[in-house]
Amino acid sequence: MHRKNFPLHLKPYLPALQAKKHSERAYDLAEKLNIPESDILDFSTDLNPLGTPFDHSGEKDDIEQIILTSVDKIGQYPDNRYLELRNAAAAFIGRGTTFENIVPGNGSCELVRLAVQSVVNEEDLVIVPSPSSGQYRHLSEVFGAHVHSFTTKEMLTLPKMTLKRAKVVIIQNPNDPTGELISYKFLANLARNCAEHGTLLIVDESSIELSDPGMSVAGLVHDNDHLLVIRSVSGIASMPGIRLAYAIASRPVADILNSARLSWNIGASEEAIGIAFLSMGNGENSEYISRSRNLIKKERDYISRRLSRIYGFDPLKSSAHYLLVDINDLFLDSERLTEGLASHGILIRDCSDLFNAGKRYVRISVRPRNEFKRLIRTLDDVFAELSKEDAREKLEETIEQGSSASAGRGTCEYYPCHFTGQDCTFCFCPFYACEDERTGGKWIESTTGGQVWSCEHCTLLHRPKVARGVLDALMADGDTDDNIRRAWKEIIVPLL
Amino acid sequence: MHRKNFPLHLKPYLPALQAKKHSERAYDLAEKLNIPESDILDFSTDLNPLGTPFDHSGEKDDIEQIILTSVDKIGQYPDNRYLELRNAAAAFIGRGTTFENIVPGNGSCELVRLAVQSVVNEEDLVIVPSPSSGQYRHLSEVFGAHVHSFTTKEMLTLPKMTLKRAKVVIIQNPNDPTGELISYKFLANLARNCAEHGTLLIVDESSIELSDPGMSVAGLVHDNDHLLVIRSVSGIASMPGIRLAYAIASRPVADILNSARLSWNIGASEEAIGIAFLSMGNGENSEYISRSRNLIKKERDYISRRLSRIYGFDPLKSSAHYLLVDINDLFLDSERLTEGLASHGILIRDCSDLFNAGKRYVRISVRPRNEFKRLIRTLDDVFAELSKEDAREKLEETIEQGSSASAGRGTCEYYPCHFTGQDCTFCFCPFYACEDERTGGKWIESTTGGQVWSCEHCTLLHRPKVARGVLDALMADGDTDDNIRRAWKEIIVPLL
Repeated sequence: MHRKNFPLHLKPYLPALQAKKHSERAYDLAEKLNIPESDILDFSTDLNPLGTPFDHSGEKDDIEQIILTSVDKIGQYPDNRYLELRNAAAAFIGRGTTFENIVPGNGSCELVRLAVQSVVNEEDLVIVPSPSSGQYRHLSEVFGAHVHSFTTKEMLTLPKMTLKRAKVVIIQNPNDPTGELISYKFLANLARNCAEHGTLLIVDESSIELSDPGMSVAGLVHDNDHLLVIRSVSGIASMPGIRLAYAIASRPVADILNSARLSWNIGASEEAIGIAFLSMGNGENSEYISRSRNLIKKERDYISRRLSRIYGFDPLKSSAHYLLVDINDLFLDSERLTEGLASHGILIRDCSDLFNAGKRYVRISVRPRNEFKRLIRTLDDVFAELSKEDAREKLEETIEQGSSASAGRGTCEYYPCHFTGQDCTFCFCPFYACEDERTGGKWIESTTGGQVWSCEHCTLLHRPKVARGVLDALMADGDTDDNIRRAWKEIIVPLL
Repeated sequence: MHRKNFPLHLKPYLPALQAKKHSERAYDLAEKLNIPESDILDFSTDLNPLGTPFDHSGEKDDIEQIILTSVDKIGQYPDNRYLELRNAAAAFIGRGTTFENIVPGNGSCELVRLAVQSVVNEEDLVIVPSPSSGQYRHLSEVFGAHVHSFTTKEMLTLPKMTLKRAKVVIIQNPNDPTGELISYKFLANLARNCAEHGTLLIVDESSIELSDPGMSVAGLVHDNDHLLVIRSVSGIASMPGIRLAYAIASRPVADILNSARLSWNIGASEEAIGIAFLSMGNGENSEYISRSRNLIKKERDYISRRLSRIYGFDPLKSSAHYLLVDINDLFLDSERLTEGLASHGILIRDCSDLFNAGKRYVRISVRPRNEFKRLIRTLDDVFAELSKEDAREKLEETIEQGSSASAGRGTCEYYPCHFTGQDCTFCFCPFYACEDERTGGKWIESTTGGQVWSCEHCTLLHRPKVARGVLDALMADGDTDDNIRRAWKEIIVPLL
């Protein structure tokens, strides 16, 4: 698309703006793999693992009934004041909140966008969290803002000069993808500091109900015109196809944002489902939300322990319904790991776009135990496949270079992995996994608990003559796979 | 709400911004009158009188089925590219359009807002149509624009200086509320002029399918980066609770707007219904839309002729599914007429907020024949009630002033309405409608076709002695209604 020298007088920063890219979806993957969507396991989204509240309760709150009832309202414009919805949200939040504090939104992004738009002029400074999904940056750059990002820890101790220069500070609690939850005390302090410096603080609490709503600062808006708290229904109720969120602000701020927001921004189905969800009783401690929190805590602990036992997996401490996992020590980067699992119908979130830290992190959502167990089993397959793939690539490189026995030896930190003077033509074995115990190899238990073929006690390929013979055989014309089979039969088998 | 001296650094024009007021809705009125909503007749909205397409077709397009099927997608984020929806819209529009020309929106307002936001800086000039709903003004003032309004005719011949100064020109075709449809030729010319002056032209064609899609300029976007055409599903499919519209623009402009729009701005139900609607076959000439156009044309002609026969009703020529009616010559203004009908469960649109022309216009939607007939019958009742109310008010005024026989005579343009020298203490008769033919009064056919009590041949109250006696009787202490009954019995009856 040619966006240079654009004739229309677009704001000058817009042609450079890129649409937010979103990760691969379950339905895309199902189509690619030609399998039913229900066979895909999705550990890549930020949804409540308990499923929708309507999957669990009796007929009264049956989601199909709620939606069908809303069909009657499709024939009319919504009431743009959304009084019933706002009243339900206020009752859900408590803390002295009334409908006059509530601004309904078509997802949390619309509310961030509305707030940024209402205070930010071109070239103003907006501070966003790092790491984060990139939505905050995008929603600010749409209005020509300069965007600086800080870690959560840095945000809490921003210098006064920075706070004063910034028009808006956006923080997410808990943070996605790290799962860090900031305590009420620290946030209340930041809110006070922002107010003192005339800076708007947006606290995105989109999933705090699934973590610890006791840390919410929603109750502080009544005395603070510089604080906007955002809550969501879509994510915590596991219904992202229903676009529904709301902001909580002081009465005068909410009044102005309600005046400035899009008319009829919530459709009839969204409104009906939102009202049903927010009115389940006991607000943030409804039976559904309490059960969700308990499930998440229990499964998060389990998943974290289990992942820690896999070599190269380092899950960070999380208070959310997902875990950020540092795989810096794994032989795969985040992109290859994500692709490898996807080829088996399992989605995790490659976080390489969220950090300036390369392909080092993946985010894995908390999901039901049986799904997680399938993930673990599949990890074994992926590791085996990808290490075999790596071996094949190295081999082809070696073949192409006609490399000598000493190749790589000087710089290899593992030399000698088998015996001093070993021939290193083949760093990876072209016959892996031969599954022939006569070589000295055997099946052992892997770090993930599955079975893996170990070559620790096979040194055949490191004998100079064997290496030379195999290399020659593989360098012969023809198909590599055929050559490998021939080399095995003609060179290795006679030695067993 | 105190919005002065606002501590938060809101954009300075925002505190003055008022939320768009929307007219009374059927459900509000039903609640007020304590009757079922289905008893309300709604001539106040801009919906297709044929009802939703799903009310009319077979099981295949059953709306409940479509929505229930979409429930399966509620558990996933929508595909933010909305490829299927955009492809369906492109096929519906034809004219060389592909999905790359389509920008999906949460109602047409979101698309106007997005386009204005993308080019307008504070204090830039935006030109909007007059009369119009006020949405365009609101959507522009949200971004601090200066807004000037012009009639459709003025828009087509804007001076070059004005075109050049304006950043955006918004036009609606057909115009709401006038129902004027601008021909393709004139609009194509305006589009060319706007492009020459670097001005963005937004043509809101939200309901052109119900009027004459042959006048659409959607096909011109391919060669014009300064043209944005907006279509809607909500209104023409009679489903305003489903918030769904789309813009058609050149590929580079659509690409940038898609980058700048809100992610996931369309929910799962909206997307499913939109795809079903846009894929009914034959695009703008689908069986449903063709039937709608035929019905609207036929009923609009009938309604227009019928309304013209009512004294004081002057329906303007319309190409849309509503009629603007000038009631300047009626004894009621638009506000009282609207309120009067509402008290009988019938909504029409008082247009006093859309014009600088006082309370002179109402908009009446084209509705099925039987509904319109009830409107006409109810008009008779409203006229009778409100003229009685007027009479009562005048009477009370007269009583309070203890006015003399000559009151008002000097300035009254109707004097003498009965005979020279008549006593005008009572301009309106406190006994109306007495229904006693001995007075000379009788039932006659009204201009609307109903029956009305005529006092043309009753002059009793204009006899000075009678007027004096009645006035004294009414000025006696006690309840006015009792006094009226006593005056009738003691003063009038003996004269009959």
